[in-house]
Amino acid sequence: MAEQSSRALDALRDKIDVVDKELLQLLRRRLDLVAEVGAIKHKEGVPIYAPKREASMLAKRRTEAEAMGVNPQLIEDLLRRMMRESYASENDVGFKRVNPDLGPVVIVGGAGKLGGLFAQLFTLSGYEVRILDQDDWDNADALLKDAGAVVVSVPIERTEAVIQRLPQLNPDCLLLDLTSIKQAPLAAMLKAHPGPVLGLHPMFGPDVASLAKQVVVVCHGRDEAAYQWLLQQIQIWGARLHEATASEHDQAMQLVQAMRHFTAFVYGLHLKREHADIEQLLQFSSPIYRLELAMVGRLFAQDPSLYADIIFAQPDALARARHYLARYQEALALLEAGDKAGFCAQFADVAEWFGDFAQQFRNESANMLMVANDSRSG
Amino acid sequence: MAEQSSRALDALRDKIDVVDKELLQLLRRRLDLVAEVGAIKHKEGVPIYAPKREASMLAKRRTEAEAMGVNPQLIEDLLRRMMRESYASENDVGFKRVNPDLGPVVIVGGAGKLGGLFAQLFTLSGYEVRILDQDDWDNADALLKDAGAVVVSVPIERTEAVIQRLPQLNPDCLLLDLTSIKQAPLAAMLKAHPGPVLGLHPMFGPDVASLAKQVVVVCHGRDEAAYQWLLQQIQIWGARLHEATASEHDQAMQLVQAMRHFTAFVYGLHLKREHADIEQLLQFSSPIYRLELAMVGRLFAQDPSLYADIIFAQPDALARARHYLARYQEALALLEAGDKAGFCAQFADVAEWFGDFAQQFRNESANMLMVANDSRSG
Repeated sequence: MAEQSSRALDALRDKIDVVDKELLQLLRRRLDLVAEVGAIKHKEGVPIYAPKREASMLAKRRTEAEAMGVNPQLIEDLLRRMMRESYASENDVGFKRVNPDLGPVVIVGGAGKLGGLFAQLFTLSGYEVRILDQDDWDNADALLKDAGAVVVSVPIERTEAVIQRLPQLNPDCLLLDLTSIKQAPLAAMLKAHPGPVLGLHPMFGPDVASLAKQVVVVCHGRDEAAYQWLLQQIQIWGARLHEATASEHDQAMQLVQAMRHFTAFVYGLHLKREHADIEQLLQFSSPIYRLELAMVGRLFAQDPSLYADIIFAQPDALARARHYLARYQEALALLEAGDKAGFCAQFADVAEWFGDFAQQFRNESANMLMVANDSRSG
Repeated sequence: MAEQSSRALDALRDKIDVVDKELLQLLRRRLDLVAEVGAIKHKEGVPIYAPKREASMLAKRRTEAEAMGVNPQLIEDLLRRMMRESYASENDVGFKRVNPDLGPVVIVGGAGKLGGLFAQLFTLSGYEVRILDQDDWDNADALLKDAGAVVVSVPIERTEAVIQRLPQLNPDCLLLDLTSIKQAPLAAMLKAHPGPVLGLHPMFGPDVASLAKQVVVVCHGRDEAAYQWLLQQIQIWGARLHEATASEHDQAMQLVQAMRHFTAFVYGLHLKREHADIEQLLQFSSPIYRLELAMVGRLFAQDPSLYADIIFAQPDALARARHYLARYQEALALLEAGDKAGFCAQFADVAEWFGDFAQQFRNESANMLMVANDSRSG
């Protein structure tokens, strides 16, 4: 490169360094201000996630950006990333306790990851939390005495047995579970306990930094009035509630979660048996191609029994998996016949059935693919 | 909320507004400075994407952030998003022309999306570009006269026929294609033209805002020295080159692209036949659950014949699809037998085969899921 150009580049890069340092200082200031907002909200018991306020703030910033010739999507993306940071740090402040009179909260399986997350949230909200884990059953009566709420958070396959094993609880104690199927655990809880009963399914992994914007599915059991405090408490933690019947919930989980896990498992098995060379495959990686691989590979970084439980425990698992097989064979027949027109016709049928959702899904995935591309460094 | 708290909140929000306005001004300044860097780079023909410089800049910022108690990942994510914006705007400046003596570049299928993108890039780099589309064949001789390079960018199923239809090109003219399979088109080009031949597969869709960090697969045909200028030109556009044989390429595409498309098609068909209610399913959506749905649904927002071409044109499509069927049946047998232990054993086998990649994929997808959650507004 010509020497003059090289000197000009160095000068520009120095200026960018200065801008970035100012940027860092602004970031620090913004995080501090938002933390102060959080502290007030917590004192008042206001949910940390305020969708309307967030939307109106973003709309304002977009308008301001446009006036300055800055892509409004850029400022929105940057602010959303900063908000994630702020939500995550809200946990440090603690939360308002909605039900000051509640007895101890006993987390059965509280040494597990999800149970541990809820133990932490209850503790941060000022409740007395007790853990009843595998080795604590000799001590169960003492732990459960005077309990205000009992949260069952154990692997799916043991949930019903654990519920049956519980000693008689106080009649006004709330019994709830966090299992990812809902019909069987809810029935078991209603049978085991005559008092308030609630089925919850937190739709997120235990490693989330915050509950902000996450969804908790609510399946009512018995005596809704007795657990309104908990639903309010969960919203203060930042989550959105979605009410459904246990069977609606289980069917939805079967259609998306269990069958997607199952087919991803088959795909992983397929890649292994075809002697695929992952390292070589990644060399070709477009963002979407890499994401497709990641959606399969991510499964295998996790506990097999977790997936086995989710797949095997679904009431309709076998029937649905057989249906899927029939559809695969149908599509394979098109391929065998070289029937491209038939394939396109079926494709168009499904596309019509998806309707506007197809484009919506395409847009959502496009945004994620851009982020995936941003983080490349190779 | 208490009046005092409410007043305190308003005051804090005013301060956040002020910070955000300063942030916008900094953004504007940074984008302008980076644009100046881009202008110098273009003049000098330096690639717009400089991995090492980018990595060292990010490392510096992370250290500075840590010193200020700011999460280093936060500043890295924000800067990467800003860099995407800068890369996208580089196209406005134009690129250095590597081969000043080249005759016109003729894009066969230049009215299509991908052909159009390359027509734009060549034009921005100062080459004379001519489009030869479906209706221009009567005029083909005139369009191709004196051509320095002919780029074939038509649907897979027509690629070979189009190559055969080309009139005799100048002996030193470069003939290349952009098709997503490589063995058949490359063979057809080598047969049709005695001069320089090159097979490329741009691993991205035509809607990318910039080629920065994208991958272009290079399958050498004949007379590499004659097209070094083009490989250099593509790198100036920001892309990374990956060399592979045509058969390596086709096998990789079959294993990931074609079969993933095929199984996603089957999944869409399955959801339709099971009368899934997408709107209801989305109510339950965790980020991963939503992404799983999106990876299926996104397919159906696109052209069926594009997917039919990709799936049906792969040389081993049928054999691989049959292999997959066998593995599905094997997994289904485990489900039918209620053999959870067998499932876990198979799972562990595949996990071992994935090795460290499984965790890497999990981390990558976790980051994308966080971004997906950031953009929720419901």
